[in-house]
Formats: sequence, structure tokens, C-alpha cells
Amino acid sequence: MKADYDKIRPRTESSYPDPHKAQVSGRKTWPITSLFRLTQFGVNRVELAPGSWSTQRHWHRRNDEAVIVIEGEVVLVTDEGEEVLGPGDCVAFKAGVENAHHFQNRSDRPAVYFDIGGRDPWDSSVFPDIGLEARTNMQIEFRPLKAPE
Amino acid sequence: MKADYDKIRPRTESSYPDPHKAQVSGRKTWPITSLFRLTQFGVNRVELAPGSWSTQRHWHRRNDEAVIVIEGEVVLVTDEGEEVLGPGDCVAFKAGVENAHHFQNRSDRPAVYFDIGGRDPWDSSVFPDIGLEARTNMQIEFRPLKAPE
Repeated sequence: MKADYDKIRPRTESSYPDPHKAQVSGRKTWPITSLFRLTQFGVNRVELAPGSWSTQRHWHRRNDEAVIVIEGEVVLVTDEGEEVLGPGDCVAFKAGVENAHHFQNRSDRPAVYFDIGGRDPWDSSVFPDIGLEARTNMQIEFRPLKAPE
Repeated sequence: MKADYDKIRPRTESSYPDPHKAQVSGRKTWPITSLFRLTQFGVNRVELAPGSWSTQRHWHRRNDEAVIVIEGEVVLVTDEGEEVLGPGDCVAFKAGVENAHHFQNRSDRPAVYFDIGGRDPWDSSVFPDIGLEARTNMQIEFRPLKAPE
């Protein structure tokens, strides 16, 4: 059965330290991966408000990434320059290629895209414009035992 | 740089033995995976002509799969029934779940979707309706040495 976006609460927070989270504050993310219990690649549906960025510009050391635009218009910014992507357009980024990218919604209406990514737990993302890198820090979390979902 | 679909020759042939290839003969596939040299998951852009099926109904023993619809309308058929998917809709299938699926274009215009899949070389697909299963049979192929592409 297809994903019912109305039944998933989108994530809006980001992990960037200030002042780097302001530019991505208009981003909503629907985690498709966990909805379907996928483990081999990640799928997020993302809605970008006008003026918002997808992320800070980055490249992945170990994960491939692909983006497919559904609705509206985003500007892809890489070391090579800028390019406008619209509905049906697709771009992908091979792991380890040091060409930082992100998407900006410079239009006056929301843009929707899907982001697909590898799941290497040793991946890290490099953010050259802000001089940071990031990795996923997995933590064990306990909760009261309950019946399986 | 985004994929330029006009510069990629879509694949139209299928590997099904007769009489099972007729239903998928209106399918064109743009291999995004190789265009961007991705290795961790596969991405295909698919255009389905009116009347055509995406595949015979199948499930994967070892690969996760996700489908994102871009244009037009397709009918998802699984053991659970039927469901119509349109632009922006997404559905995914976890590896090993024995619920065969495919998509039928019952409309009078082409449908476009992206298909994302795991890359487990030991995957096989099970086609319960036609009593077959399939795996990828990798072969070494030689060609005259030439300069790297």
C-alpha cells in the first residue's frame, strides 16, 4: 500500500549547529525508509518551503545519493555551478566524489523531491562551505517493553 | 548535472520467456544507475505505455524495492488488492516479504515512474502467477582495450 503522507508526521528539526540551521528551517521530511522498514537504502520525501535549502552544501564519503524532483523547482548548486531541476528531473552523486551539492528553493512555491541514499554506517558528510563534517552517531535507547508494532 | 533523458537510449527489451514478455512490451527503461556510476542501489526511470505492465507480478528474496510515480497513473496490484498511484505517490517493498506486486498502466496516456532497488547479487525474484523465478546471471565479457571512458 502506498505511503499516506497525511498519516506520517514530517520531521522539521535539523542537527546543524547555529548559525547553520537557519537556511534549512523550511524543510519537512517524511521518512519513507522506516514506514516500509527498508534497510538497504534510505528514502525521504522532502518538501522545501520557498527560500529554504535542502541541506548545507555537502558530499558523502561512503554513501551514494540520488534525488528525484516531483513538484516545483529547485536550484542544484555544486562546485560546477548551478542548474534548475523540475518535476521528473533526477540527479545522483557517487560516494566519495568531492563535489559538494545542495538544493535551494528560490521560487515562490513549495518544492517536493525524494532523496535516496546509501546506508553505510561509516559514512560521513563533508560540508566545505561551513568547515564541518558530520557522521551518524548511533545510540542505544531503552524504553518500557511493549507488544510488537 | 541532472540526467538528460534525451541522451540516454532507453532499454525496451525484456528477458521474460514467451508468452510472458507481451504484457511488458510497452516498457522503456532509462538506466540512471550506470549514468551516475552508482553501486549501492539501482535507479531506473521507466515509462509505461498505455496497456503495458511494469513487470510480471513478483517479489524479491533479498532486495528492497521502492517506486515513486512522476507522471500519469498506474494501478498497483498485490495479493492485498489494487490501488491507484499518481504523481508524487510512493510505495516500497521490503526484501523477503512474499507479497507479489506489479504496476499496470490502464490509462490512455504514458505513465512515468522511478524504480529503486537493492543490489544484492544473490537476490532472486519470485513470479507466482507464472510459476517462474529469476536471478541475475553475471558473465565476463571481453572487448578490445580502449581508453577509459
